[in-house]
Amino acid sequence: MNILDIIENKRDKKELTKEEIEYFVRGYTEGNILDYQAAALIMAMFINGMSKQETTDFTLAMANSGEILDLSKLDKIIVDKHSTGGVGDKVSLILLPLVASAGVLVAKMSGRGLGFTGGTVDKLESIPGYQTEVDIHNFVKNVENIGISMISQTLNLAPADKKIYALRDSISCVESIPLIASSIMSKKIASGAQKIVLDVTVGSGAFMQNLHDAEKLSREMIEISKLANRETVCVLTNMDEPLGYSVGNSLEVIEAVRFLKGEMIEDVKQVVLELGAYILKLAGIGDDINKNKELLIENIKNGKAYDKFLELIKNQGGDISYIENTEKFSKAKYIEPIYSTQEGYVKAINAKEVGKIVGNLGAGRIRKEDKIDLSVGIVLNKKVGDKIAKNEIIAYIHANEKEKLEIAKEELYKCILIVPTKVDKLQSIIKIID
Amino acid sequence: MNILDIIENKRDKKELTKEEIEYFVRGYTEGNILDYQAAALIMAMFINGMSKQETTDFTLAMANSGEILDLSKLDKIIVDKHSTGGVGDKVSLILLPLVASAGVLVAKMSGRGLGFTGGTVDKLESIPGYQTEVDIHNFVKNVENIGISMISQTLNLAPADKKIYALRDSISCVESIPLIASSIMSKKIASGAQKIVLDVTVGSGAFMQNLHDAEKLSREMIEISKLANRETVCVLTNMDEPLGYSVGNSLEVIEAVRFLKGEMIEDVKQVVLELGAYILKLAGIGDDINKNKELLIENIKNGKAYDKFLELIKNQGGDISYIENTEKFSKAKYIEPIYSTQEGYVKAINAKEVGKIVGNLGAGRIRKEDKIDLSVGIVLNKKVGDKIAKNEIIAYIHANEKEKLEIAKEELYKCILIVPTKVDKLQSIIKIID
Repeated sequence: MNILDIIENKRDKKELTKEEIEYFVRGYTEGNILDYQAAALIMAMFINGMSKQETTDFTLAMANSGEILDLSKLDKIIVDKHSTGGVGDKVSLILLPLVASAGVLVAKMSGRGLGFTGGTVDKLESIPGYQTEVDIHNFVKNVENIGISMISQTLNLAPADKKIYALRDSISCVESIPLIASSIMSKKIASGAQKIVLDVTVGSGAFMQNLHDAEKLSREMIEISKLANRETVCVLTNMDEPLGYSVGNSLEVIEAVRFLKGEMIEDVKQVVLELGAYILKLAGIGDDINKNKELLIENIKNGKAYDKFLELIKNQGGDISYIENTEKFSKAKYIEPIYSTQEGYVKAINAKEVGKIVGNLGAGRIRKEDKIDLSVGIVLNKKVGDKIAKNEIIAYIHANEKEKLEIAKEELYKCILIVPTKVDKLQSIIKIID
Repeated sequence: MNILDIIENKRDKKELTKEEIEYFVRGYTEGNILDYQAAALIMAMFINGMSKQETTDFTLAMANSGEILDLSKLDKIIVDKHSTGGVGDKVSLILLPLVASAGVLVAKMSGRGLGFTGGTVDKLESIPGYQTEVDIHNFVKNVENIGISMISQTLNLAPADKKIYALRDSISCVESIPLIASSIMSKKIASGAQKIVLDVTVGSGAFMQNLHDAEKLSREMIEISKLANRETVCVLTNMDEPLGYSVGNSLEVIEAVRFLKGEMIEDVKQVVLELGAYILKLAGIGDDINKNKELLIENIKNGKAYDKFLELIKNQGGDISYIENTEKFSKAKYIEPIYSTQEGYVKAINAKEVGKIVGNLGAGRIRKEDKIDLSVGIVLNKKVGDKIAKNEIIAYIHANEKEKLEIAKEELYKCILIVPTKVDKLQSIIKIID
């Protein structure tokens, strides 16, 4: 077997065998296959597409390219949750303690990633003392002891995916459904998940901009999960406007804490309950989605989810006084309200643009080394469908630099659309694909 | 403009603009665009194809990537000749002095190349004293003085093509008609040709294995030449069996010399006359192809072509006593006849396999640094269509190592097919495309 034949086969639209795919993934990870050969093959995969079997073989080969998190010691079904990403996405912070409070074991390892804001791990680090760098032994012990641990990705999971993703980014080969699907699934499989609930976001602030692509990606991932013997459910959720009101790092933690204390924002609630109900189902706790949702609401109302969150924070070394009193989180230097210049109804709040503004305020990373500003962000005062009066506050900008604040103000006006006629609220849950 | 957008456009089947193509060729030649980005783009070009305009723009961008041989000083139409390659191809050695003797200016710069035997330059170097490394000033002066000069490629012609060709070879992207066509034409244009006669070989020993591909390649090159304002004629010639009887370096020189002395082998004669007649036509010497052929035959018979060849050799410092008496060429240590084991008719002599055998005897190069053995090779005693008796000689192997001789013998039997029923001779000229 040699890489030239493999490239030629894919170039000529032949289906690659499992052995050919493994040969490529191993060879490229080890550095025996060169960047330009991988680039040619990836481009051929992009243009000529990949069969379900090829995509699955590719996924598994990438999953097996590094360490695999072994959670078999926990002796219970591990359900993982993953989101294809969005703006204002604080779902994991709420959802994971919530399902843990209902008896699901949560062993969550998150990457930091690049984006408009930090990842879940960065958000957790805005709680003073919270340790995200925990070795695997203690990580598993934490899950055994209190049923939940959330840490940063300390294992070398799916290094092939990391290398191939970086290459795709530099050869215009990102937007390929099979390549995206295998990238996501390889990481999930490497992180030890037996069952997976995927939050597939759709809309301006999501990777998948329209329903058609989101459905295609979901079906592709479901196919992989079937062939790879991992039960998976995709929940397609709306990401046309930011999720909830807050976008930023500590701002989102505060919103999550309030939610767990019972202040349930409608769109966040719908997403959390839908994903949570399927996690409970896959974990074998209950087959009835509506009953599962009721159970979850109950655990918010009776404080069990909040208590589990406190337990998690405490167990990871975090200072729970910040949770008990979110006023303690350090605030941005400038908190400036933005007023509506007209009356009417909010028609659109472009999630991607809001994300960019928050990123420019300093909340996110462009390169891995970048430091993120935990306190900056935007807190919306209105959502799509809300009535607004002239001079009423649309949103607050939290900034640490005057200049950045001024740019953010200007930009924020551009991405909020107000119209005179009534507008419907956005539907948070678009579709379930399983 | 940036390379990511260019890759994306080609990936998505959009036609690239002249500016985009020039940006890529310049950037890659200068090293600002990386190998893996070029690999991705080349693969997209391979799979999605290229329009006539794109192929022409690509050709011209590569031609302009380095030095361009300026022959304007010669003040006469320069017709270049190029072959897509074959086994036993000594055409240039005969054809160029021949057309020079008829008044066509010949300013020929040849690469050494990799292959079963050396290139024209290597063959000329088997004549002791012949200087192939000549500076451009003296090269042009030689052409002015005696109407012909044949040297090695001393200019940095089409470096982009060199770099892209090497990359294509390492990413399974060689066999693309537009990429092959642009590679050939870029070198011809860079070498100063205004009009071009192309010998497009077809068959087992050629790059184009079948007529369909050869026609496609020819049409592509004709299109480029039209858009690039260079008149071009393609002569499709047979390369199923080796051309002539001799395959090797000095062995081919000897056959060429004999031809110029009047010993015209039929298939070589047909190819030489056809190409020569079109060169004369493009050079403005005569429009009638048959009359041109008669003129050329006349110049063989009256010794003008042979005299021009002697003049060329002398002018380049070569020892013409070798031409006057070809027995002086140093011979291989072993010259072994191969006998037929059956009687009948020669049905096939696989040119590619004969080429490989000669290459293994040491006549060719695999890497640029390899030294070639000028004396080894094969001299056929029979051609396709010839009658042969049992124990009659089919061919002679010229070898310098006993072991290699034995391997060559064994292999040679495998690539000659003898059948009991009568077989037609192969048709040397398949088609003219202009």
